[in-house]
Amino acid sequence: MQHYEDLTVGDQETFGHREVTREEILTFARQYDPQWFHTDPDRAASESPYGSVIASGWHTAAMTMRLLVDNVLSEAATVGAKGVDDLRWPTPVRPGDTLSCHNEVIEKTPEHPKRGLVRARTETYNQDDELVFTMEGLVMYLRRGE
Amino acid sequence: MQHYEDLTVGDQETFGHREVTREEILTFARQYDPQWFHTDPDRAASESPYGSVIASGWHTAAMTMRLLVDNVLSEAATVGAKGVDDLRWPTPVRPGDTLSCHNEVIEKTPEHPKRGLVRARTETYNQDDELVFTMEGLVMYLRRGE
Repeated sequence: MQHYEDLTVGDQETFGHREVTREEILTFARQYDPQWFHTDPDRAASESPYGSVIASGWHTAAMTMRLLVDNVLSEAATVGAKGVDDLRWPTPVRPGDTLSCHNEVIEKTPEHPKRGLVRARTETYNQDDELVFTMEGLVMYLRRGE
Repeated sequence: MQHYEDLTVGDQETFGHREVTREEILTFARQYDPQWFHTDPDRAASESPYGSVIASGWHTAAMTMRLLVDNVLSEAATVGAKGVDDLRWPTPVRPGDTLSCHNEVIEKTPEHPKRGLVRARTETYNQDDELVFTMEGLVMYLRRGE
């Protein structure tokens, strides 16, 4: 398992492949973000500037989290995250998109004898290399014992 | 519908009542954030400092969004959000918690002839008035036509 000491500022990787279906967009949005431009395909087709439903931004965040868990955090000795800075949704996620991620360690702070804080910038792209999501996550990694 | 001109810096309201079940915590986390402290009740009971599973932070964000949509955004002429600043999860959300929200308009920027940007601070509390989630959302409101 990767601990705080195993990470270096500048470490980066690209990973993931997640297809986004219309069904999943609707299911997530009906439960957590029932605004018409996420949940109503007919109204979105005629009234939305995007011409179709788009994913809730929180759904995009959640799909990004799944890519992070599967590819980064599953091998990391973390105890959760404090929060996120500078979260942005520059391009909507649409039905049929395929998402992938780029993650880079940008800061380390040894804030506690047993834990360190790692700031990592995560960027999520669609199949056309458009940036759909970005954030700076503040993840608490365990430090190695003696 | 509430437009950009209808909002004033300092406007605030408290609302919402959402019970968080263990089943919903597990369902969300298994799909989007399958880390053991969210998905494995037995391991969480014996190894987690929290003594039980806790909700994925993205689940807490999504439940907060649902409270915002039902109580604020359903009456608002918005075209989505640009992003979020200063998102934090200061206290874990546990099975059996009940969540409510406080929302305050903290800044307005008339950035476009047809839209204005509204910065609002959202705080989510549990039944013991502990702050479990906070963020500053950047919501695009439509401006009234002529």
